[in-house]
Amino acid sequence: MKVSELGEFGLIDLLAKMAGGGDERLLIGIGDDAAAWQGDDSIQLASVDSFVEGVHFTPETTPWQEVGWKALAVNLSDIAAMGGIPRYALVALSLTDDSEVEDVAALYSGMLKLAKQYGVTIVGGDISRAPLVAIAITILGSSPTQKILTRSSAQAGEIVAVTGQLGAAAAGLEVLKGQRRLDPEADTRLKNAFLHPTPHIAEGLLLVDQGVKTAIDISDGLVADLNQICKASQVGARLEVERVPVEPTVKTAFSERALELALSGGEDYELLFTASAEIVDKVKKAASCPVTAIGEITAGKGVTLVDKEGNPFKLAKAGWEHF
Amino acid sequence: MKVSELGEFGLIDLLAKMAGGGDERLLIGIGDDAAAWQGDDSIQLASVDSFVEGVHFTPETTPWQEVGWKALAVNLSDIAAMGGIPRYALVALSLTDDSEVEDVAALYSGMLKLAKQYGVTIVGGDISRAPLVAIAITILGSSPTQKILTRSSAQAGEIVAVTGQLGAAAAGLEVLKGQRRLDPEADTRLKNAFLHPTPHIAEGLLLVDQGVKTAIDISDGLVADLNQICKASQVGARLEVERVPVEPTVKTAFSERALELALSGGEDYELLFTASAEIVDKVKKAASCPVTAIGEITAGKGVTLVDKEGNPFKLAKAGWEHF
Repeated sequence: MKVSELGEFGLIDLLAKMAGGGDERLLIGIGDDAAAWQGDDSIQLASVDSFVEGVHFTPETTPWQEVGWKALAVNLSDIAAMGGIPRYALVALSLTDDSEVEDVAALYSGMLKLAKQYGVTIVGGDISRAPLVAIAITILGSSPTQKILTRSSAQAGEIVAVTGQLGAAAAGLEVLKGQRRLDPEADTRLKNAFLHPTPHIAEGLLLVDQGVKTAIDISDGLVADLNQICKASQVGARLEVERVPVEPTVKTAFSERALELALSGGEDYELLFTASAEIVDKVKKAASCPVTAIGEITAGKGVTLVDKEGNPFKLAKAGWEHF
Repeated sequence: MKVSELGEFGLIDLLAKMAGGGDERLLIGIGDDAAAWQGDDSIQLASVDSFVEGVHFTPETTPWQEVGWKALAVNLSDIAAMGGIPRYALVALSLTDDSEVEDVAALYSGMLKLAKQYGVTIVGGDISRAPLVAIAITILGSSPTQKILTRSSAQAGEIVAVTGQLGAAAAGLEVLKGQRRLDPEADTRLKNAFLHPTPHIAEGLLLVDQGVKTAIDISDGLVADLNQICKASQVGARLEVERVPVEPTVKTAFSERALELALSGGEDYELLFTASAEIVDKVKKAASCPVTAIGEITAGKGVTLVDKEGNPFKLAKAGWEHF
């Protein structure tokens, strides 16, 4: 069977089953935003993400400096989604014979700019020749408390909530591709959302502090990532699409398509979480960013989208899957 | 400038300079076999290596199960060369649409077989689509003592020594490519040296125990890797080529080319180390594998090869460099 027939998530399930457990200090293995194990004094976190030319980025839409920024941001976001603090990064670079040293240096400087901002040190890596440019970053971090956020702890009756606003990154990509012309301010704002995503480390720590147990970062798309929580927690979710906080510039510029971008565009790297109504209220009060309740966890299976009358809402594509 | 003009090691120097230091717990950053930092209770180690189709392996010469084994072995060897114990691995897999699920499962089972043997748990990873198959493995480990092996601590007057015997892996690759026909026993032995390299974890720990401070694993080739030690330690080395322990099957099968394979073939994953004559003697007595003194560290620069009369020995190519 081809991996394209089994699908990305089917393949992850297969490999997770093969790997099994077997380590008594391991808290979270394959299948969450990051792995977690009990270290000597604190919980240790580790995550890896690849960034492949032509798949995750094209130099035409993403300058090298931003490729570096994004490749690291995506990883830091995984640590944010565990409620951890990132600390060290290892960078495996695949380059072509034709790669320009100044492009590699630009890529690296983008990475370092973000790393510095978050107190992350690049401690090692690997460089190899390949027919195309690819970057695999491993990020190591820790949890300052003995608590982490997982995908597998959602319970029926909990509220589904999200930090920030959605849709701007996917909209920004369309602008970068030249598919949409906007006024300069909107143009810059949306492009920037795509090129310079912010890992929400502080928000992840806040969620843990307020008692949240379940979270994921929105990389593949709101619906697809909520579905990951449902699958891992063996629950369902009811998502009220009209409550989804669509980024205002996206609303204005993309009118009828704005909601679709917010639901399935992905790459916003906001945190999607579930908790009791009481905890969500506490998070709202304590957070410096918008926090919006958008639905609830049910005893069912999968994600159901409804409009404000409670009628089913149809979505063309839930989100990104590699195969 | 193209990266092919700057070269792999030039590029690593550039990026290491850009990354700088800045973390007070960091002991070893970019440029050694693995990164090392002071953890809560013990020194933590981390290393990443990529394995790219058509560059590091071809499915024609290396079955998928062995690709998995080797990709992990190469990483474990980096931890061995630091005198550490490997613990956790993260696996970033790039696959094509056409990749067969059973090939991926075979790759993974090869990795798991080796992982189990060394008490390593695969705790996470990433799967992405790409135009070719690539694997980047990050290995995390720790040092059971407060001592590690680095590349940068060699001192003039020390003996250069190596564990095991060299040349078999490079010879095995030629056999696998069909460039050389051998009797079945030699054929199996050499192919196996290439397909199933052994990470020398126990030997790395032994070196630390006996007071060795400087080591590297032989991946690019004996001369190239000794040159890495020289560069990092700002010393020179004099290598007596006739003392190099060439694997006996390689000697028999490759006669006049055997020494070249041992000097520059690479992928043997034996440990190359430097220490006082007294410590090298202690290592010899304590080790269960052959340990051979092959030269000495000098106050000069770079690696000088000499024959038994002390005359210069010429080598066509020192070893593998990616660009």
